[in-house]
Amino acid sequence: MLAKSLRKAPVQVVLLDRNNYHLFQPLLYQVATAGLEPDSIAFPLRGIFKRQKNFHFRMAEVESVNAAANILETNIGPIQYDHLVLATGSNTNFFGNKEIEQHAIGMKSLIEAVQIRNYVLKQFEESLLMTDEALIRPKLSFVMVGGGPTGVELAGAFAELREYILPKDYPELPVHMMEVYLIEAGPRLLAAMSEKSSRKTEEGLRKLGVKVMTNTAVKNYDGTVLTLGNGETLRSQSLLWSAGVKGVPVGGLAPDTMIPNGRIIVNEFNQVQGLQNVYAIGDAAQLANDERFPKGYPMVAQVASQQGKNLGHNIIRQIKGKAMQPFKYKDLGSMATIGRHRAVAEFLGLKLGGYFAWIVWMIVHLLNLMGFRNKMVVFINWAYRYLTYDRGTRIIIKRGAANIVKLRQSIDTPVQ
Amino acid sequence: MLAKSLRKAPVQVVLLDRNNYHLFQPLLYQVATAGLEPDSIAFPLRGIFKRQKNFHFRMAEVESVNAAANILETNIGPIQYDHLVLATGSNTNFFGNKEIEQHAIGMKSLIEAVQIRNYVLKQFEESLLMTDEALIRPKLSFVMVGGGPTGVELAGAFAELREYILPKDYPELPVHMMEVYLIEAGPRLLAAMSEKSSRKTEEGLRKLGVKVMTNTAVKNYDGTVLTLGNGETLRSQSLLWSAGVKGVPVGGLAPDTMIPNGRIIVNEFNQVQGLQNVYAIGDAAQLANDERFPKGYPMVAQVASQQGKNLGHNIIRQIKGKAMQPFKYKDLGSMATIGRHRAVAEFLGLKLGGYFAWIVWMIVHLLNLMGFRNKMVVFINWAYRYLTYDRGTRIIIKRGAANIVKLRQSIDTPVQ
Repeated sequence: MLAKSLRKAPVQVVLLDRNNYHLFQPLLYQVATAGLEPDSIAFPLRGIFKRQKNFHFRMAEVESVNAAANILETNIGPIQYDHLVLATGSNTNFFGNKEIEQHAIGMKSLIEAVQIRNYVLKQFEESLLMTDEALIRPKLSFVMVGGGPTGVELAGAFAELREYILPKDYPELPVHMMEVYLIEAGPRLLAAMSEKSSRKTEEGLRKLGVKVMTNTAVKNYDGTVLTLGNGETLRSQSLLWSAGVKGVPVGGLAPDTMIPNGRIIVNEFNQVQGLQNVYAIGDAAQLANDERFPKGYPMVAQVASQQGKNLGHNIIRQIKGKAMQPFKYKDLGSMATIGRHRAVAEFLGLKLGGYFAWIVWMIVHLLNLMGFRNKMVVFINWAYRYLTYDRGTRIIIKRGAANIVKLRQSIDTPVQ
Repeated sequence: MLAKSLRKAPVQVVLLDRNNYHLFQPLLYQVATAGLEPDSIAFPLRGIFKRQKNFHFRMAEVESVNAAANILETNIGPIQYDHLVLATGSNTNFFGNKEIEQHAIGMKSLIEAVQIRNYVLKQFEESLLMTDEALIRPKLSFVMVGGGPTGVELAGAFAELREYILPKDYPELPVHMMEVYLIEAGPRLLAAMSEKSSRKTEEGLRKLGVKVMTNTAVKNYDGTVLTLGNGETLRSQSLLWSAGVKGVPVGGLAPDTMIPNGRIIVNEFNQVQGLQNVYAIGDAAQLANDERFPKGYPMVAQVASQQGKNLGHNIIRQIKGKAMQPFKYKDLGSMATIGRHRAVAEFLGLKLGGYFAWIVWMIVHLLNLMGFRNKMVVFINWAYRYLTYDRGTRIIIKRGAANIVKLRQSIDTPVQ
């Protein structure tokens, strides 16, 4: 949004990213659950800006900011800047628990989503080689931690895999041994939405067979045994963690500009504390100029794109010698899908649930997905899935022999 | 084809594969050149057979055959069989040149095609960071070795990348420094087709700016310098090798049943030499019962699927106590696409070229692609590409930091 809003400004826009694409994160969970191909929710950055003459892209890793010299250090060399905007986003937050971090799976990048898909399909394949129920159950037990939109949507998608895909694809699999858990530390799911929507969401997930546990903390996870706050345990080989995010740190900034969760403190113009021409926007920025959000705005796409637009206009205003305008957040609503025909959506004072919310969810996501080709491919996948109860992309893309299943427990003649 | 032809037979069909999908190899080159997403040319095996009651799939690696005991050793345990069919296909053949094998890129699997896409896009990104022409030229020089359909189609696709995509995506790139070579050791391209089609193909590629070199052997390649048979050299960082294939060997068979290129010698019923109930079909089998093909049938999909069908019927005939029928190959024709509006096709005694052959090529490939979803996604991609001259899937999917561009040569301020 920032780069786009500067398209007619007399500036040179240089975008650096470690990836060459823009990722539409809200649909990552569908890649992870074999509903969409990774390519359909990623759009090449060069393609987006191919008509913007003042735009330059370089694939690079940022190393640190030298604010005194107006230089950004990167792995492709130092880059001099007049204005520097940090929009480095967020990554999974394990809140310092190293053991969970080591064994749980986060889902913030495309490659993580593909790895989840491969891993989950591998669990099904390997389960077929086992006869011992005590080994099969943890393999077929999928735990989502975090009751926000990502956890809710993942849990719904796993429940639908069990309902529609597994009985056809794996007729020999004891599907009744598969469990889907959704664990939330707070009192309700989708805490950012109304209590009514939370209740509807929990009901919807329970109908799909998801075991929803609210007011439940996760204390530890060693790759097999999950220990809850009350000391109880669950056995699972798959823990998908979407219980928190933290800003991605950038080196070289003054320590007092960073809060412990990795976000950078900015003022109402998104200027980094103490600096004039260095800004932070989106998940990476901590801006507390709205009494509704005393701890800063939520780490969602809406805030990020509105801040990008605001900052673009402010940079143009600076060039014209005008005063900058403070950022004001306009909440356009929020939504989450639970499964086929089921979603919740809140916008313009409306609280929708069920079929209509589900249609709204799909339209909003399709419209926000970048590029005509991606929209068409996602639409085809959704239409196909809706009509056939099938999922098209459940393939395991492996690299070399290292990933090959190496299980020999209790197998003599796998097929009788 | 074999598993399908046994769907009503009183047998248990067990299919083992190291991957959980069937790959449509003829379109691999489009994945490698950012035209199609990998998922759209792979179809999950369990999905194909979900209605076939006597079918069982296991993801496994075959280790060896114990023909005396009718046991197949695999990484998921030993499996007892009544009939064993080896359809292990083929892999890239570097004819024993270890240095070429180490530095050249083969293209027989989905992951190789994705790696080629990533590698090629990385060459473009890295070229932008350089100012020295002597370094840029080898980075933008792409050499295909092997004038069969794969080499021809890859060369055409690279030439189209240069023509339509790079000027828009990389306006700062010196596109005139990019070269596409197609090197063939024999006297003409597409040797399996008529001389007329070969000539048309070469003309078409030259019009697209491909440097076609026939009667040219490749002697060595060290990752940068390619040495030709006549001692001349070319500088290139990208050598795509499609100059040969060899059968994928299976352990445990008598050494005299294997010929040096890895194929297994079979009789006209596809029985492995000296064995009654072990068969080999497709690229892995060497069957010389047709005077047109004294060295065995070509390693193409048509032969493989016809052999699968024939063997399925022969197994049913055995069960019914009838005599088996020898395999007879029916050549349905062959084709290759050169680029937009350009292809060659030969079938039913016809020799087509140009626009009409191109339409035929697309229809035949779409119809042979498995699954409605895949057909639709590929069709959308082709229609999109045709109308916009754009390619939708040019994203680089990386794993971790190891693959990140680490170039510092001649960079101070990459953008002036």
